[in-house]
Amino acid sequence: MKAMAKVRIVPLGGTNHVTRNMFVYEYWPDQGEIERIVVDCGIGFPEEEMLGVDLVLPDVSYLQGKEKTLIGAIFTHGHDDHIGAIPYIFPKLFSNLRALPLFASRLTAGLIESTVKDFGLNLNINVTEDNTLYKLGHFSFELVPVTHSVPDTKHVLIYTPIGTFYHGSDFKFDFTPVDGKAADLQKMALAGKKGILCLLSDCLRVEKEGFTPSERLIEETFEKEINNCQGKFIVTTISSNIHRIQQAVNVAARHHRQVVFLGRSIEENLKVAQRLGFFKIPQNVYLKKQKINTIADHKLCLIVAGSQGQEDSALVKIANNIHERVKIKPGDKVIFSVDPIPGNENAFYQTIDKLSKLGAIVSYSDILEDLHVSGHASSGELKIFLSLLKPRYLVPIGGNFRHMNHFKNLSLNLGFNKESTLILRDGQIIAFDETGKVHFEEILDLKTVIVDGLGIGDVGRIVLNDRKKMSEEGIVVVVIPLKRDKKRLLAEPEIISRGFVFMRMAKDLIQEAKMIVRKILERRKNLEDWQEIKNEIEKELQLFFFKETQREPMILAVIININFPKI
Amino acid sequence: MKAMAKVRIVPLGGTNHVTRNMFVYEYWPDQGEIERIVVDCGIGFPEEEMLGVDLVLPDVSYLQGKEKTLIGAIFTHGHDDHIGAIPYIFPKLFSNLRALPLFASRLTAGLIESTVKDFGLNLNINVTEDNTLYKLGHFSFELVPVTHSVPDTKHVLIYTPIGTFYHGSDFKFDFTPVDGKAADLQKMALAGKKGILCLLSDCLRVEKEGFTPSERLIEETFEKEINNCQGKFIVTTISSNIHRIQQAVNVAARHHRQVVFLGRSIEENLKVAQRLGFFKIPQNVYLKKQKINTIADHKLCLIVAGSQGQEDSALVKIANNIHERVKIKPGDKVIFSVDPIPGNENAFYQTIDKLSKLGAIVSYSDILEDLHVSGHASSGELKIFLSLLKPRYLVPIGGNFRHMNHFKNLSLNLGFNKESTLILRDGQIIAFDETGKVHFEEILDLKTVIVDGLGIGDVGRIVLNDRKKMSEEGIVVVVIPLKRDKKRLLAEPEIISRGFVFMRMAKDLIQEAKMIVRKILERRKNLEDWQEIKNEIEKELQLFFFKETQREPMILAVIININFPKI
Repeated sequence: MKAMAKVRIVPLGGTNHVTRNMFVYEYWPDQGEIERIVVDCGIGFPEEEMLGVDLVLPDVSYLQGKEKTLIGAIFTHGHDDHIGAIPYIFPKLFSNLRALPLFASRLTAGLIESTVKDFGLNLNINVTEDNTLYKLGHFSFELVPVTHSVPDTKHVLIYTPIGTFYHGSDFKFDFTPVDGKAADLQKMALAGKKGILCLLSDCLRVEKEGFTPSERLIEETFEKEINNCQGKFIVTTISSNIHRIQQAVNVAARHHRQVVFLGRSIEENLKVAQRLGFFKIPQNVYLKKQKINTIADHKLCLIVAGSQGQEDSALVKIANNIHERVKIKPGDKVIFSVDPIPGNENAFYQTIDKLSKLGAIVSYSDILEDLHVSGHASSGELKIFLSLLKPRYLVPIGGNFRHMNHFKNLSLNLGFNKESTLILRDGQIIAFDETGKVHFEEILDLKTVIVDGLGIGDVGRIVLNDRKKMSEEGIVVVVIPLKRDKKRLLAEPEIISRGFVFMRMAKDLIQEAKMIVRKILERRKNLEDWQEIKNEIEKELQLFFFKETQREPMILAVIININFPKI
Repeated sequence: MKAMAKVRIVPLGGTNHVTRNMFVYEYWPDQGEIERIVVDCGIGFPEEEMLGVDLVLPDVSYLQGKEKTLIGAIFTHGHDDHIGAIPYIFPKLFSNLRALPLFASRLTAGLIESTVKDFGLNLNINVTEDNTLYKLGHFSFELVPVTHSVPDTKHVLIYTPIGTFYHGSDFKFDFTPVDGKAADLQKMALAGKKGILCLLSDCLRVEKEGFTPSERLIEETFEKEINNCQGKFIVTTISSNIHRIQQAVNVAARHHRQVVFLGRSIEENLKVAQRLGFFKIPQNVYLKKQKINTIADHKLCLIVAGSQGQEDSALVKIANNIHERVKIKPGDKVIFSVDPIPGNENAFYQTIDKLSKLGAIVSYSDILEDLHVSGHASSGELKIFLSLLKPRYLVPIGGNFRHMNHFKNLSLNLGFNKESTLILRDGQIIAFDETGKVHFEEILDLKTVIVDGLGIGDVGRIVLNDRKKMSEEGIVVVVIPLKRDKKRLLAEPEIISRGFVFMRMAKDLIQEAKMIVRKILERRKNLEDWQEIKNEIEKELQLFFFKETQREPMILAVIININFPKI
């Protein structure tokens, strides 16, 4: 029997995460070579329990050894969770990076270049135009303009011999966007009319009723807030939200304030955006940060990175009153044009509290409306989106399980049948055959690939579990010097702890623990089986410390073997 | 010159925390003994950076040695942040616990007894009546009924020779409370008319416009939700919210479902509340948890602890599908009648996600309104409160700095002058003299007293910093066995790490580190100054590991001195 051709979608960043987006579309012809294209390659953010971890990456082990079948990569927009993993993943996957054509809109391409700059990668990036068909083997694709919280965001229409796929990652419908470039609803309708086999759709904000407000709303808020500001006008927001920053600049200029940018991420992003025409600031409005103290406070507007209260950010330095150039004075106003990321509320509100203590008037979403709007589609927009595209199959992406569930409910309300919406388990590969029917194929066992310092993937579950244990109760190290030949103790066992109890206050406790170790060693007839001795010591000390302190530090017994004659 | 009499307020739990409430009111007569009464004695919850810490306590070192001057303690309500520190603090402060009279309303007294039960304390608790004057030395006081998220909550009117104080801790104005016992606004007005020198007022929810909705609202929501529930109806909420649980029971009973309680905190609280008449459940509605599997799912209502997604809670066991009695089936419904505590969103939403994956229909605030109401007064209620009491001075309590700031703004809008509202730094003692004038006296240097396991106060900044460091990058232990007399290395240095790198993958790294240690030891002419050697080894390894891995584990060098002849 002749094999049928098929198209497979492989979600390498998983399917129920908001971040680390990476998808592979595969064309399996009935005969001949498989062709693969990549859509996005983003980092993830570590979960709370991943102590000390910097970043998380998609797991690309599936692609190892398949380099030759990869014929292109497309990027939807310039957020880190869509482009940030390129410098970690691409050099390991490709022996010749120039051989792989990358496709991205003008700003996205600029932000990719800025992202890989420090890594010294030589990429082959092609800047795309809208409404232009690009061919990659049996695939062809075009980019559909949409709106999001970074300019120049696109969706991807992917044409294959099997049918058309619509890759609808992060978006909203902003009908009055700051740059006037709204989403192309007509294009969507036409594509829908021609027939979409499968839509992959952002579902993160499906729980919200109605429509996500327009970004343009924010300028009015800034206008109101700057009006009664006597001192410095300070705005903090997400560094990649170019339009938000543009609006702050517009308002500052109208009020004859000069604008200073503080924080590496904001400065870098604006440099790219300005060079490519996505951000404009009049010469007489821009002020170098070195000149900040030459201008009166009521003539200043500062745009500052660190809106989530990140350690070491410019804003947190200001809040801690240790910034080299900026001191808060009573009358200064700080606008948080952002919501706290779930789980990050403590750092966020601590920063607000510190700024308030220094005398700043602080505006944030709890006390003032219209300070922030989301970049994701609410249920109203999703209803329009689905009605324009009318795909045969729907796959919610970029959300957690509960969002995917709600997306399915929304599709049922719109008249899609139960089988249309595919809620995929993490790593689930799906395939569409020549009749357009979907098949659930293998489930990849995706690992959480961790970046910690320079190491990629060398921190695993064991290391993380150790960190967690030590973070909660500390560590107790027991050193046991043994004479190698005679198998006996050579000196008093040594006990040192860190993060457990304050040693000087716990002398008795440590003395007792030493006694326990001595007794174990005396009880044993021979001291040959070190592993067994170690285990016994660790177990008994664990029990002893728990009984005495109700704490369970990590116990680490180290046996040192000393061989007299040799040294 | 004769000293003037005065009343001092000493905030031992600090002034800009939401939790660990503990205030001391002091009467300093112009001659004779000082008299002190305590209001509340609550625990605090550890901040994010306090790794592994169980609880935080008020710092009572100010009271040490002042036992004889303490003549009574009053408790406003039964939440842990108002009564939970009693078992930790009172036994250390008082040689004879029975000598100190404690005053609390009926339910609060019951919850105090339940709190101290495991500690075996023999307290002298007096159950108070409303509108009854109690005398304590020169003080007298009466309790004013208010509404909050635990029944039988009170404010305290404290009469002193200097003037009247109103201790207005946690409250809201629920005009239609579930138990019909509304706040006594007339009492407040009369007290205000007679003259309040200083009001201490809850300010936590001052940022919210309008009025906090009535608790009664929730019953309608439960009613709507149970109506279309095919399987088990599962409600989770804060364990002390007796009225919330009462409403769930009422709805379950109307729908002929039997109610099972799961989780120690809920079971304990309800036992107390039921015994004292604050909670009612018909015999034929209550079901023992052991019988849960004898009843059909659509005849069951489970009230489950763990609404914040706490580890080891009944709800999280259910979500992880490891609960000994309860398995989620499609059609079961879980109602989160609670909002996530700021900073706790991850655990909260993970639990929702896991329950959804098991097939439960999950309702929570993001997708359904009126699932939770706060126990704290919004700005509308605070305006009424201040207008009834019209105090000369106002002190916002139970909030962070930003809430105190807003409270001051609110008071200005009501016509109070700028000097009326006192925003106190942490530990700031204030005194009122015979003319009623306020004085800022000393500022206590309040420590964060940490409870970790059985230890109180033995975990300090050093231990916590060590935990943080190890949590992020792990630890590397270097053991150096030295010959005591000859001052030379007796065996190969041993290097062990935990939470840093996976040892088996990092053999080369460890070998290189050993070389570095050997070189340092060889370079040194004598090995006498162990401390210096340790420091040098720790410093060099720090640099080496950072260069190689961009990580900074804690380095712990242990020198073992071995003395041949003696052993």
